[in-house]
Amino acid sequence: MEMLNKVCNALEVVRKVNPLVHHITNYVSVNDCANITLAIGASPVMSDEIDDIFDLIKMSNALVLNIGTLNKRVVEAMLFIGKEANKLGVPIVFDPVGAGATKLRTEVSLNILNEINVSVLRGNMSEIKSLVGLDSNIKGVDSVEKMDGAEDISRLAAKKFSCVVGISGEVDVISNGESIYKILNGHKILTKVTGTGCMVTSLIGSFLGAGCDPLTSCISGYAVMGLCGEEAYKKSGNNIGTFKVKLFDEIFNLNDIKIREGVRLEKC
Amino acid sequence: MEMLNKVCNALEVVRKVNPLVHHITNYVSVNDCANITLAIGASPVMSDEIDDIFDLIKMSNALVLNIGTLNKRVVEAMLFIGKEANKLGVPIVFDPVGAGATKLRTEVSLNILNEINVSVLRGNMSEIKSLVGLDSNIKGVDSVEKMDGAEDISRLAAKKFSCVVGISGEVDVISNGESIYKILNGHKILTKVTGTGCMVTSLIGSFLGAGCDPLTSCISGYAVMGLCGEEAYKKSGNNIGTFKVKLFDEIFNLNDIKIREGVRLEKC
Amino acid sequence: MEMLNKVCNALEVVRKVNPLVHHITNYVSVNDCANITLAIGASPVMSDEIDDIFDLIKMSNALVLNIGTLNKRVVEAMLFIGKEANKLGVPIVFDPVGAGATKLRTEVSLNILNEINVSVLRGNMSEIKSLVGLDSNIKGVDSVEKMDGAEDISRLAAKKFSCVVGISGEVDVISNGESIYKILNGHKILTKVTGTGCMVTSLIGSFLGAGCDPLTSCISGYAVMGLCGEEAYKKSGNNIGTFKVKLFDEIFNLNDIKIREGVRLEKC
Repeated sequence: MEMLNKVCNALEVVRKVNPLVHHITNYVSVNDCANITLAIGASPVMSDEIDDIFDLIKMSNALVLNIGTLNKRVVEAMLFIGKEANKLGVPIVFDPVGAGATKLRTEVSLNILNEINVSVLRGNMSEIKSLVGLDSNIKGVDSVEKMDGAEDISRLAAKKFSCVVGISGEVDVISNGESIYKILNGHKILTKVTGTGCMVTSLIGSFLGAGCDPLTSCISGYAVMGLCGEEAYKKSGNNIGTFKVKLFDEIFNLNDIKIREGVRLEKC
Repeated sequence: MEMLNKVCNALEVVRKVNPLVHHITNYVSVNDCANITLAIGASPVMSDEIDDIFDLIKMSNALVLNIGTLNKRVVEAMLFIGKEANKLGVPIVFDPVGAGATKLRTEVSLNILNEINVSVLRGNMSEIKSLVGLDSNIKGVDSVEKMDGAEDISRLAAKKFSCVVGISGEVDVISNGESIYKILNGHKILTKVTGTGCMVTSLIGSFLGAGCDPLTSCISGYAVMGLCGEEAYKKSGNNIGTFKVKLFDEIFNLNDIKIREGVRLEKC
Repeated sequence: MEMLNKVCNALEVVRKVNPLVHHITNYVSVNDCANITLAIGASPVMSDEIDDIFDLIKMSNALVLNIGTLNKRVVEAMLFIGKEANKLGVPIVFDPVGAGATKLRTEVSLNILNEINVSVLRGNMSEIKSLVGLDSNIKGVDSVEKMDGAEDISRLAAKKFSCVVGISGEVDVISNGESIYKILNGHKILTKVTGTGCMVTSLIGSFLGAGCDPLTSCISGYAVMGLCGEEAYKKSGNNIGTFKVKLFDEIFNLNDIKIREGVRLEKC
C-alpha cells in the first residue's frame, strides 16, 4: 500500500535529517513533547518569547503551536511567529487544545487558522467540530463527542482551513479535503496519560520538519502513536506509569518492519 | 469502620463520575498532578488565564489552587476564579506551598483563605503552623517541623479557616475542626519525589469533584497516596525513578479490597 | 587520585548537609531538575517571582540559573536575585542554554556573566564558544560543534569569566582557568533525553550548596551524570523511557564504591 510506504519513509527521513522542531506549547505536557520529539529522531526546542523565537524560527524545520495553557503573552507570540514561519516556508502543525470549551480558545484558534497558513490541524472531535461551526460538547480539554461523521467533518475542516486535518479518536481520521484515511491502531489507555494528543502533534511536527508532506506527516504521527501505544500496552499491562515509560521505549525503537507488520491504515 | 467505607465509596464514585478538576498549579509538578488525576479516575484541566478559566470553571466539578510557583498574574487569577467557584458552588482545595517561607506566600495564602471559601486546606506542618500564626521553620517548601501537636494545630486551623485541614507528615493528620483522623500509611521515600504533596492535593480535588464531602475527600487523598506509596515501594525497592512509575501503576489499579486490607486509619 | 576522593566526599557531604538549591530554570526540564536534586541528596526549590525569591535566597545554599525558556520577566528576576546571592555569598551555577542560537540568549548570558559573580558556568561547546566570542554553530539548544580545542576554550572561558567552566560533550571538559580535567564517562543516549544538561547543572548546584568548591562541584556533577548514565544504560538497553527511569535510580543509589570503581577522570 502506497501510504504505508510513505510512513516507513517518513520514519527513515526524520532519523536521517534530525529536523529542529520549534514548539510554543503548554506547560503540562512540554517535557513529554520534547522527549517524544527526540525519541522519533528529531530535535525539540521550546521558547515563547518573541525576540527569542524570531531568531530560532530561522533555523527551525517545523513549528508546533499548541494552546493547551494559553495566555495573552504567548498567544501574541504564536501569531507573530506563525507569520514569520509562513514567510520562511517553515511548515506548521496547530493543536487547538480545548477549542469549543472556552470563548478564548475558540477565538484564538480561529485567529491562528485565519491569519496563519497551517499545514496540519490536529485535534479531537469536539475541538474540530467547534472550529467548523458545528454544535459541540467538550469536557475541559477532552472530547465527549462520538466519532460519527468524523470523515465528513475532517474533510469539511480541511477544505475550510486549507490544510490537512487529523481528528483523534478510537479510530483516527485524517483528511486533506479530498482523500480520507483512518488509523485503526491505538489503545484506550492512551487517553489515561495526559498529553498524548499533544505528543501526536509533536510527532507530526517532526515529520513535517523532515520534509514530509502534510498528509503523510499527519498519518505518520497517528500511526506511530497508535502502534507504539498498542505495543507498550502489551508489555506493561494495565499499569499506567509503566505504560508511559514503555511508550517512549517503543517509539525510540520503532522501525519499518514493525510499521509494515503493525500499522492498520485504511483509505476510505 | 465507617470512614473506611467512605474511602472505598469515594474511589468508586470518582471513577463513575469522572469529575473535571480545574487546576491552577505550579510548573514543577503539573504533569504529575494531571497524570495522578487521570490515574484516580478524574479528568484534569490546567489553565491560569482569567478569561479562559472564567469559562472552564463553569464546567468544572472542583478547583485545585496551588501556589508552588506563584507569580502576580497567576495569584490574581486564583483570587478571581476562587470567588467564581464559590458563586457556582464548585468546591476548592488549596495547597499553600511554602507558606511561612516567604512573606509573599504567607500573604497570598491568607488572602486566599480570607477571601475564598475553601473546602480543604492541605499543607505540611510548617505551612499550616505559619498560617495559624504560630512560629514555624521551613526549608524552602519542605517542612522541618516535628509533627508534635499536629492534632491540635489541624483542629485549630480547621476552626480558624472554617474548612477541613490536612497536615502531611510521617503520619498525616486531618481535622474538620471537631474530629481528628490519622493516616498511618505512607513511606518516607515519598518525600524524595518532588510534588507528592501537590499530587495529594490533586487527589483531594478529584474526590471533591466527585461530590464527596471535604473530610472524606481529604482522608481519601491521603489514604490513597499513603497506601499506594507503600505498595509501590514494595515493588520498586529503594529505586526512586522506578518508585515514581509504580506509584502511578498502583493508583491506577487501586480497588476497594486493597483499601480495606491496606489503609490504616485512626480516629482520635 | 586526589580529585576522585573529592568527588566521593562531595557525595557524602551533599547527603549529610541536604542543601537547599534555589532554581530559576526552564519549564521543559524543571520536574527532572527537581527530582535529580532530591536524588543526589539536596532539596530543590523553584520560583521566579522577585518578591518571593528575595526571601527564599536568604535560606538557600546555592542558586541555579538556567535560561532554557527565558522571558523578560524571568531574566529580570535572574539578574536581581543573582546580585542578592552574591551579597549573601550564595554560590551560583549558570547554564546559558542556547547562547549563540539567538541574540537574546547571547546577550542575556553575557549580562549575567558580567553583572553577577558566577561560580560555575556549564554549557555545551556551541554555547561556550559563542560566549568567548568565537564563531560557533548551534542547532536550537543543541551543540553541533566538535569538541576539538575544548581544553583551550574551557580555560579561556574560565579566565574570561573568572569562574569554573564545564563543557559537556562526549568527553566533558572542565577548567578553573589553570587545571583542566576530563570526565570520560557518559553514554550518547543521554543526548536523547531532554534536559540532561540542565540536570548536570542542578547536580553542580547541589554540590555547591553543600559547600564544595566550584571545581569539585563541576567535576562531581559531570562524574555523577556520566557514571550513572552508563550504569542506567547497562540496565535498560536501548530503551529511552526505561533509561530515564533508571538514571534516577542510579543517582539515588550512588555511593563512593561505585564512584571509585566507575568514574574515569583525567587531569590534563
